[in-house]
Amino acid sequence: MRAARQRAVGVDAGGTTIAAGLVERDGTLARVVRRPTPLDSTESFLAAAAGLVEAVRDESVGAVGIGLPSAIDQRTGQAVFSVNVPLAGVDVRAWATEVFGLPAAVDNDGNCAALAEWLSGAGRGATDMVMLTLGTGIGGGLILGGRPYRGWIGAAAEVGHVVVDLDGAACQGFCGGRGHLEGLASGLAAGRIARSLFGPEADSRTLVQAARGGDPRAAGAIRELARTIGAGVATLVNVLNPELVVIGGGFGEAFDLLLPWIEEVVRRDGSLPAREVVRIVPAGLGPDAGVIGAGLLGFEALDAAPSAAGA
Amino acid sequence: MRAARQRAVGVDAGGTTIAAGLVERDGTLARVVRRPTPLDSTESFLAAAAGLVEAVRDESVGAVGIGLPSAIDQRTGQAVFSVNVPLAGVDVRAWATEVFGLPAAVDNDGNCAALAEWLSGAGRGATDMVMLTLGTGIGGGLILGGRPYRGWIGAAAEVGHVVVDLDGAACQGFCGGRGHLEGLASGLAAGRIARSLFGPEADSRTLVQAARGGDPRAAGAIRELARTIGAGVATLVNVLNPELVVIGGGFGEAFDLLLPWIEEVVRRDGSLPAREVVRIVPAGLGPDAGVIGAGLLGFEALDAAPSAAGA
Repeated sequence: MRAARQRAVGVDAGGTTIAAGLVERDGTLARVVRRPTPLDSTESFLAAAAGLVEAVRDESVGAVGIGLPSAIDQRTGQAVFSVNVPLAGVDVRAWATEVFGLPAAVDNDGNCAALAEWLSGAGRGATDMVMLTLGTGIGGGLILGGRPYRGWIGAAAEVGHVVVDLDGAACQGFCGGRGHLEGLASGLAAGRIARSLFGPEADSRTLVQAARGGDPRAAGAIRELARTIGAGVATLVNVLNPELVVIGGGFGEAFDLLLPWIEEVVRRDGSLPAREVVRIVPAGLGPDAGVIGAGLLGFEALDAAPSAAGA
Repeated sequence: MRAARQRAVGVDAGGTTIAAGLVERDGTLARVVRRPTPLDSTESFLAAAAGLVEAVRDESVGAVGIGLPSAIDQRTGQAVFSVNVPLAGVDVRAWATEVFGLPAAVDNDGNCAALAEWLSGAGRGATDMVMLTLGTGIGGGLILGGRPYRGWIGAAAEVGHVVVDLDGAACQGFCGGRGHLEGLASGLAAGRIARSLFGPEADSRTLVQAARGGDPRAAGAIRELARTIGAGVATLVNVLNPELVVIGGGFGEAFDLLLPWIEEVVRRDGSLPAREVVRIVPAGLGPDAGVIGAGLLGFEALDAAPSAAGA
């Protein structure tokens, strides 16, 4: 019976796409399926997620883990706050436990990616790790004192919303905060700069490609974006004294271009001795980190479940 | 024998003054003694601290706790980095254990103050708490997930060194980081503004008194200082999602003047839902928080010591 319970389904349910896959305890991922996210109602969102779980599920599956772009209060399993998906106030953990008949866990998608990098990616063995995901926005997750840190009601690790420019430009979308890292240096900000330099068809990839090709305007823009990211990283280094800062996400794939300027600012604005011991490294798992982390979270629920001893 | 082991000596050894006192398990403080800090050598610094411990010690004392303005690596007991006191590389825990013949603990002074506020001050019962000490500089401490968080090598909670103004003015003294909260809104920064408004004899107290007296220039300066502090608090709220932010320190005594402007910026720059649930409160223990917290840390060492069971 034991060998029959070796995998979990991980679900990464974002505002654009829902992905599900089979995850092993070592983080190996198989049989990933995806579909567009239906956003018209809570019911259609949950039905889509359930359909993907059933599509990949087989008899080896003992648990389900779900990552969502929401703050999840672990005491209740509820999505406390939910911007891009219709889940505010929904107890997704209870729903999943009932619908799938398996131990289930739910967490913020940034926390899932950080968990995956920590357990089976670039952060293996770290005690204190900060993950930054440089995507359209900037998200992340925290491993502190050898365990995930989620904050009082599951809303921690909004590392894209550190204030790096007092009274600066307003953050995009619902946030409205001023001078946030995300407003100034996300993939969206990079795309805005790309369009100003290269026309309306350009995006952050255009900017990165032009910088790699030696375009001095693109290189200068990458430098300024990276220096701003560096100020945010310096803040995180000074507050959290991590062993490791892991940088992932689509825009994070330009890690080699960004790192020298990030490090320049961290050397200047980081405090001693924290700035001297931190290592800044690229993520190891790519865009599947969210699915993998959700599956690994599922194993935590499995191991904590009363029936685990008899499995 | 048990009743004879009810107190710890707490030592708060700063760059200007060393204080020691008898601390009970509930945080009650008695018999505090102080002396100027000798900075000429490690030996004279440690001898002064030892003299104060012996001056307050009696047969009720079962442990010693020491707070220092240094990062302390808890794995080794060593002061990893030490700016204002000559202790870099010194294993203060081993020294104290040997010299006093008692279980001993050592920590950063900001961590000690946070521990005191958490266990017996404004933070009682909190699971996730950030403390800011607004003094000449800005220090602090973190309680995360129901326990003190110190970072990888004990250098976390440098909350005065969050970057709030990208490429802004350089931080005072050894730091040199740009646009740090401490450089822009500490008691030292307040004193600088006070002198520009009220002449060379003025300091941060002058500024606070003038604001209380209705002086519009002073009120405007307090507003700008508090808004800058608010940006730092918003960063901490967004990264850590604390239940509680506790504000102490000498400049923090102007809490009632600072709070409205801090809250204004936190409402704007804080992320949802974290900004809606955080409470910002004044510290409860005053300037003795460091001594009390050091004593409470001593009890932790006492309870962890092998001999504790037989005491």
